[in-house]
Amino acid sequence: MLDVAREAGVSLKTVSRVVNGEPAVRPETSQRVERAMAALGFRRNDSARQLRTGRTASVGLVVEDLADPFYSLLTKAVARVCEERGHLLLSGSAEGSPERERSLVSAFLARRVDGLVVVPALADDHGWLAGEGVPFVLVDRPAGGTPCDSVLSDNAGGVRAAVEHLAGRGHRRIGFLGDDAAFWTAQQRRRGFLEAVDALGLPAADLVGMGPHTVASAAALLEGWGAGADPLTAVVTGNNRVTVTALRALRDAGRRLEVVGFDDVELADLLDPPLTVVAQDPERLGDTAARLLFRRMGGDLEGMGPVVVPTRLVVRG
Amino acid sequence: MLDVAREAGVSLKTVSRVVNGEPAVRPETSQRVERAMAALGFRRNDSARQLRTGRTASVGLVVEDLADPFYSLLTKAVARVCEERGHLLLSGSAEGSPERERSLVSAFLARRVDGLVVVPALADDHGWLAGEGVPFVLVDRPAGGTPCDSVLSDNAGGVRAAVEHLAGRGHRRIGFLGDDAAFWTAQQRRRGFLEAVDALGLPAADLVGMGPHTVASAAALLEGWGAGADPLTAVVTGNNRVTVTALRALRDAGRRLEVVGFDDVELADLLDPPLTVVAQDPERLGDTAARLLFRRMGGDLEGMGPVVVPTRLVVRG
Repeated sequence: MLDVAREAGVSLKTVSRVVNGEPAVRPETSQRVERAMAALGFRRNDSARQLRTGRTASVGLVVEDLADPFYSLLTKAVARVCEERGHLLLSGSAEGSPERERSLVSAFLARRVDGLVVVPALADDHGWLAGEGVPFVLVDRPAGGTPCDSVLSDNAGGVRAAVEHLAGRGHRRIGFLGDDAAFWTAQQRRRGFLEAVDALGLPAADLVGMGPHTVASAAALLEGWGAGADPLTAVVTGNNRVTVTALRALRDAGRRLEVVGFDDVELADLLDPPLTVVAQDPERLGDTAARLLFRRMGGDLEGMGPVVVPTRLVVRG
Repeated sequence: MLDVAREAGVSLKTVSRVVNGEPAVRPETSQRVERAMAALGFRRNDSARQLRTGRTASVGLVVEDLADPFYSLLTKAVARVCEERGHLLLSGSAEGSPERERSLVSAFLARRVDGLVVVPALADDHGWLAGEGVPFVLVDRPAGGTPCDSVLSDNAGGVRAAVEHLAGRGHRRIGFLGDDAAFWTAQQRRRGFLEAVDALGLPAADLVGMGPHTVASAAALLEGWGAGADPLTAVVTGNNRVTVTALRALRDAGRRLEVVGFDDVELADLLDPPLTVVAQDPERLGDTAARLLFRRMGGDLEGMGPVVVPTRLVVRG
């Protein structure tokens, strides 16, 4: 900055005003300083500003898997809100590990991010995160124990809508292939399934199989449910991975069964028959979480707690 | 750090040694300092270290679209290499705009990233980036003018393999539906197509349609190519978006045509008929670019220039 001041023939204070975008600098002076900055290749070093202000204009995001289409859409929405507000986004995948989640959060906190959006690896107590004193919003899954902000899909409601749709088409024996019951979302979707079959008086409590599934294990479950006098005629799958596994199992067995998948999948309309799904809205989840985070970072702490984003039944079959 | 020194009953220098992981501290002393740090909620502020060392242990990544499966796999691979090396990843989508690309790069440089991986919005001269003096590697597309590192798919070779596969199955009239010819990758793939039909003596130079395509425009092209005495029997599509558009156009027209798509797509094996593709390897592109960047950041400047990653024909039809 001293070099710039010398080159432009102005005081150091004037250079500082221009660099920090403060008013009270005449346009001609400002232009002279900017020309000197360009000539000398001056670039502001945000580290100095960060050390002084304690703010870095950055947000950390921890998802389960950056390459999963659900999380990549969520990430894009968070990135868009950050960009609107002039913030940079740091991101990483916890890959289902609470240790990796904590280690990413630690790395982000060491960079003094101003806030965090986190998909918790487990729905366990996140008091350790609340104790850091940095605003954060959980997304996709809540945390038990310590109250905190979370933005969640209507998991149970989505599966209820899927079951009601199938029942409306005359199905009586409907199965549910869920993901690993260790996941909070998988539990919620199973709950939605059991509530719906119960409310409709359907005999389905024995037609629930939780994952993780392979094509072979899904095939075995579907074959078992399809045997006997009163075979299964439809199945609800608990997420995009389970849907693809179930469709592969049915294809290999040469069997047709009405399927409603939780989560939309690419090319669903090109399958034969086209696949009906319960679509989540990962962009809205990410957008809502990011906007809530910026409100918290701005000091607005009103209405802490879960926000529920609706799902949508997309009938294609 | 003074508070920690007081709490642990050691000198400030000792606390500094522990914080910076320097040797020559006895294990008992180190433990005492760590307990004091935990009790006081001490966390290292990386901004101070950054200001002193000029290094931030972070990498910036600019892709076209974080939510596109191709780029989300590439992003995940770059993130994995960064994590291995203890670096954080900042990322953003340029969405095809050279202005957004420059503005993301500027924001990353203001944070003093140690290096950059960039998918250039256009294959234009990136001398402006080379002039910043920060190591960078381009990926997916090269830049003209100023020589620089790039990691690219074998675009032309992949399309040649697709055409040879179709010719081997007896097809003589093969079309090419490419993406927007403003993209370097689209030009390369068109070149591969023209080289292959020429080498095989096929009459296909008039069967090239570049995008952007809608379902309606793709349908019109395919209908035109399918009319007359010598109709089209197969088509190669230029990327995953064009593949999906072409499949929708064929479905709507109730037409069957042998398709080979550039880029693998989810559920390709579940389509009827299963879809044969030329698969790129976005994880290998990202991994290769990130490892090359770390070599450059480490001062190894040998062998600058393009690195080509092979594609793979996945026959499913």
